[in-house]
Amino acid sequence: MNPPIDISKDVIIHNAPRRAEEILSRMWGGKAVFTCTIGNTLTSTIPGVSDAGDTPELTLYTPSADVELLVHGRTICMDGIPINPGGIPTPATVTMAALALSEMPFHIINGGVNVLPHVPYFDVGGKAGRDIRTGEAVSNVQECYEKGLVIGDILGRSNDFLVASESCTGGTTTALAVLRAMGIIEENLVSSSSPNNPKELKDKIVSEALKAAGAEYGDLRHEPLEAIRRVGDSMMPANLGLVIGAARRIPVILGGGTQMVAVLAAALEIDPSIDENVIVGTTRWLINDRHSDIVRMVKSVGDIPLAAIQLDYTDSPYEGLRAYEEGYVKEGVGCGGSAIAAVLSTCGEVNCERLLQRIHEDYKEILKMI
Amino acid sequence: MNPPIDISKDVIIHNAPRRAEEILSRMWGGKAVFTCTIGNTLTSTIPGVSDAGDTPELTLYTPSADVELLVHGRTICMDGIPINPGGIPTPATVTMAALALSEMPFHIINGGVNVLPHVPYFDVGGKAGRDIRTGEAVSNVQECYEKGLVIGDILGRSNDFLVASESCTGGTTTALAVLRAMGIIEENLVSSSSPNNPKELKDKIVSEALKAAGAEYGDLRHEPLEAIRRVGDSMMPANLGLVIGAARRIPVILGGGTQMVAVLAAALEIDPSIDENVIVGTTRWLINDRHSDIVRMVKSVGDIPLAAIQLDYTDSPYEGLRAYEEGYVKEGVGCGGSAIAAVLSTCGEVNCERLLQRIHEDYKEILKMI
Repeated sequence: MNPPIDISKDVIIHNAPRRAEEILSRMWGGKAVFTCTIGNTLTSTIPGVSDAGDTPELTLYTPSADVELLVHGRTICMDGIPINPGGIPTPATVTMAALALSEMPFHIINGGVNVLPHVPYFDVGGKAGRDIRTGEAVSNVQECYEKGLVIGDILGRSNDFLVASESCTGGTTTALAVLRAMGIIEENLVSSSSPNNPKELKDKIVSEALKAAGAEYGDLRHEPLEAIRRVGDSMMPANLGLVIGAARRIPVILGGGTQMVAVLAAALEIDPSIDENVIVGTTRWLINDRHSDIVRMVKSVGDIPLAAIQLDYTDSPYEGLRAYEEGYVKEGVGCGGSAIAAVLSTCGEVNCERLLQRIHEDYKEILKMI
Repeated sequence: MNPPIDISKDVIIHNAPRRAEEILSRMWGGKAVFTCTIGNTLTSTIPGVSDAGDTPELTLYTPSADVELLVHGRTICMDGIPINPGGIPTPATVTMAALALSEMPFHIINGGVNVLPHVPYFDVGGKAGRDIRTGEAVSNVQECYEKGLVIGDILGRSNDFLVASESCTGGTTTALAVLRAMGIIEENLVSSSSPNNPKELKDKIVSEALKAAGAEYGDLRHEPLEAIRRVGDSMMPANLGLVIGAARRIPVILGGGTQMVAVLAAALEIDPSIDENVIVGTTRWLINDRHSDIVRMVKSVGDIPLAAIQLDYTDSPYEGLRAYEEGYVKEGVGCGGSAIAAVLSTCGEVNCERLLQRIHEDYKEILKMI
């Protein structure tokens, strides 16, 4: 049942290595399902907060454009593909390759967005979020959470493991706000899609948000849904339910960085019993980021394994991809989690080498669209 | 791979027996996924058309209440459960039992309804339909169809076979209109949720609808999407896409009667290559109905197998269930298809006897809610 796993070239474990080995063994050769929950808040349109879009206004299109890429291989709600200023492509380009090579089924969950994607998605009754400086960021949290639970439960019945991920612009700022409201991390360790992580701006916004929400550090430790309602984003409630619902049945990879850590913290607060079924899956790029500390962030939540796919764009012929090595983009749209799931579900048949080759093939086509 | 199938006590084959055996063999012991696509048109509120609801107005709640029953075991959008006048319960009571005993995963697809269900569902951009006598019954057909294709494709990747079904009130009338527009059946062979099938009324409505749509018998033979747009219902476009998308990969049980025959006819017109992957799954009650002819209807579409679950309520202690034997309800919410899938996926471990027992247990609880 548990064949020897030698994927050290492709996936490196940080944190909780024994627990990681146990969970990875259960996922090895299993049937994986990938999910991506989209959401946004108007926080992403505050100039300087989010680089996940060529302009602040375009950040509202990015989540939907990302999942259109996954489903159709091209965007419909906007021209071209989501890029950071400078033309660096969305991490969905990695996810596309992982899904294609592994033939993993995948589902989109609409947590609530301003621009609806042209794909079939699970509706959970979510609405796009407000600027978190209102202290009333997300509507309909309870309903979205409960519907997420049902989706997780259903997907947990017919799959061996699940990847939960997100595309939610401005999401590291909202994640920081939730993590502070819950008292998980005081220091600003969160990442950014830019190497020039605008930490001061994020701190200022989060302070204003918490003040408007009437919550100080740790005040909402035991009320994660309330923390999300006040200062979170619309990706979170459904994704939180999804993770809990699925992890009660099967192992779950939380594919992402800062944002999925916020979901993880909330999930473990609501149902601590799932701790043996959750692992964070991210990228080497995020692990190596000098401006954030995903390893410490995960540790601050609990004894939860952290795995990183070892994709390396150093020798890529494309400038837009090499930029990942300089700290751009790094993570998002479950790119790390989907790549790890592709390796595990195919017993290592899909590896970083094949992923890289496929990403290059796809990116060549995508460059024609930009 | 193909163990001997002896399920003749539980499932009887009508039409195309060899093809049936071949398809059933491929489903035996396989991983099944159940889907139910909901929709409605205002046609169901024409007094006398639909008995799937205690009053004409309540027929608009029935599809959503049905899927709430499947997901939550109780209704949320209305009190009690959907009943025919006289208190005869929705066939979702059978589907609930089949899903519970087989532990089959299931998904709800919202083709477009007036009353949104309180469950997570696939949104395909559908809207509730108009009265077909307008000749402009359904909006957004192409988008819903295409998104259905994607859902079918995705579910086809991770399952061994799929059940497509419907809950759409007034749906036998809209199905008759589409079947006539496509020139599949001239005679009114369609069934009804009432033993007093209001055939004359249905004929009159269909005639008015076709006139308003500017289409005579067979005019839209090669344009099924256009037939649906003019005189169909909002369940059809998404379900049509779903069936085609899935049947290109795996066997599909079209679970239902008249309405799924209309979907089948449209699907085979669009993609005849799926004919070796489709089978109609229904109930003994519908086969035995003296006022309709599902066997001839399926034959008129093609050489497609028809299987019927042999559930028998003759000795049921409950009057509301015994009414099925007198011609009430008979089919809907994929009750026949889900029951057949439960038998096949569990290699006969779930059978009619166990289904009956579970239905009685559930119904006892449900009677407390009515």
